[in-house]
Amino acid sequence: MRNCENIELHPIAHIENGFVDKFGIPRQSRDSSVIESRIVFEPEYRNPDAIRGIEGYSHLWLIWQFEEALENLTVRPPRLGGNVRMGVFATRSPFRPNPLGLTSVRLLRVEEGPVLVVSGADLLNGTPIFDIKPYLSYSDSHPDAVNGFAEETKDYRLEVVFPENAETGKCENEKMLNEIREILSQDPRPAYQDDPERIYKLDYADYKVSFKVNKGKIYVLNITKSDRK
Amino acid sequence: MRNCENIELHPIAHIENGFVDKFGIPRQSRDSSVIESRIVFEPEYRNPDAIRGIEGYSHLWLIWQFEEALENLTVRPPRLGGNVRMGVFATRSPFRPNPLGLTSVRLLRVEEGPVLVVSGADLLNGTPIFDIKPYLSYSDSHPDAVNGFAEETKDYRLEVVFPENAETGKCENEKMLNEIREILSQDPRPAYQDDPERIYKLDYADYKVSFKVNKGKIYVLNITKSDRK
Repeated sequence: MRNCENIELHPIAHIENGFVDKFGIPRQSRDSSVIESRIVFEPEYRNPDAIRGIEGYSHLWLIWQFEEALENLTVRPPRLGGNVRMGVFATRSPFRPNPLGLTSVRLLRVEEGPVLVVSGADLLNGTPIFDIKPYLSYSDSHPDAVNGFAEETKDYRLEVVFPENAETGKCENEKMLNEIREILSQDPRPAYQDDPERIYKLDYADYKVSFKVNKGKIYVLNITKSDRK
Repeated sequence: MRNCENIELHPIAHIENGFVDKFGIPRQSRDSSVIESRIVFEPEYRNPDAIRGIEGYSHLWLIWQFEEALENLTVRPPRLGGNVRMGVFATRSPFRPNPLGLTSVRLLRVEEGPVLVVSGADLLNGTPIFDIKPYLSYSDSHPDAVNGFAEETKDYRLEVVFPENAETGKCENEKMLNEIREILSQDPRPAYQDDPERIYKLDYADYKVSFKVNKGKIYVLNITKSDRK
C-alpha cells in the first residue's frame, strides 16, 4: 500500500481562446463545436518531440485547472434549477476537492510552435493545462453510458435569432458569428433565471453581445466590438 | 491571463484490488472487465453526501496518481515493440510531466462506507485517487475517434488455456479464475518478448500464477495460493 501524500503539479501548457469571461462558456464540450482554441506549451515542453505521433489521433483529453475551490461536499448543479444538492463526486462542478477539470477536445491541426488547435474546449482563456493524453475509443468511449440526472440536459439547445435590425454589421467575421451562435444556443443564462425582459451581456473574444431570451428562443440585440485589447 | 503556478493535490480516496504487482495490470481498462476494485474514501470524504446521486451513473472517471516520473519528452510504447519513440502527450504512458492517470470505470454498486465498487480499473492496489467524476456520454463518448498508433492494439487478445494437468485445484474460486483469465488474455508480457520456453510468474491477489506463451496462446502451468497476507 502506498502512502497517501500530496503531490505538486506544474502547468505544461495553457489555452488561448475567445472565452474571456466565464459567462458563456459551454458547460460541457460537444463534439460538434465550431469554437477553436489554441493550446500553447510552456517553454519547457515547447518541442515537437513532446507531441510526436499526436496527429494520428482525432481527439485528446485535457486535464486542467479550475479556479474554484471546494466549498462543500455537495453542490447545486445549475441544470437542476440550483436548488437540489448532489455529491461533488456525482457532478462535474468546478467546486471540487482537487481543482481538476477534464475535457475531451477534437484535434483540428498542429501549427508551428508547436501549437495544438482544437475544438470543443470549455476552458476559460489562459487556463493552465496539466496533461494532454490521446483519446482511445476502445477504453474511453461508452456511448450507452447512463448519465444520471445530467441526462435531461443532453439535447438541450435553444434557437438563436439574429433579428434583421440587430447591429451585427460590426461583426462581419462569419466564423465569429458562428461561434457566438453556438455559445448562445447552449443557453448561457443561470438555469434558474427566466425573465423575458432581462438583457444579458456576453463578452466573447473582442466582441460584446447583448441578448434576451423568450419562450425558448434567444434574440440577439446587439454585437459590438469591445475595447478589450 | 492567469498565472501559471504550481498547485498541490491531496488524495481523496485510494483503490483496493488484486493488482498487487504492476506485472499483469491491463494497459487500458475495458468496459467488459470482470475485475472488481473497491474505491475507499479518505476519512475527510468518507461521507454519503460526497457521492449523493452517483448511483444514477453507469460509468465514472478516476484521476489518479502514477508512481513514475518523467524521464524524457518521448516514450517507447510497449505495443510498438519498445523501439519506436512517441511524444509523451501522444501516449498514455505513465512517465509524464505530471503523474496523472485517467481511467473510466463501470460503477457496479455502492457499499456501506461509502465504498464504490467498480470494474475496469487498471490501477495498482493502493493507488491514490485525486478525483472522481461522472461519465457523461454526450461529452465524453466519441466511438469513432481515430486511435493513432494505438489502433492495432484495440482488439488484441490471446486465448488462455488451462491444461488439464494444471494445478488449478488450489484456486476453486470461479470469480478469481475468471479474473486471472481476463488478465492473461490481455497478454501481460513485455511486448518485445516472444520466447515460448520462458516461464512467467504473475501475482494477483493471494495467488501466484505461472504461464508460458506459444503461438498466440497462453498456457497456464500453475496457480497457487501465495503467502502474502
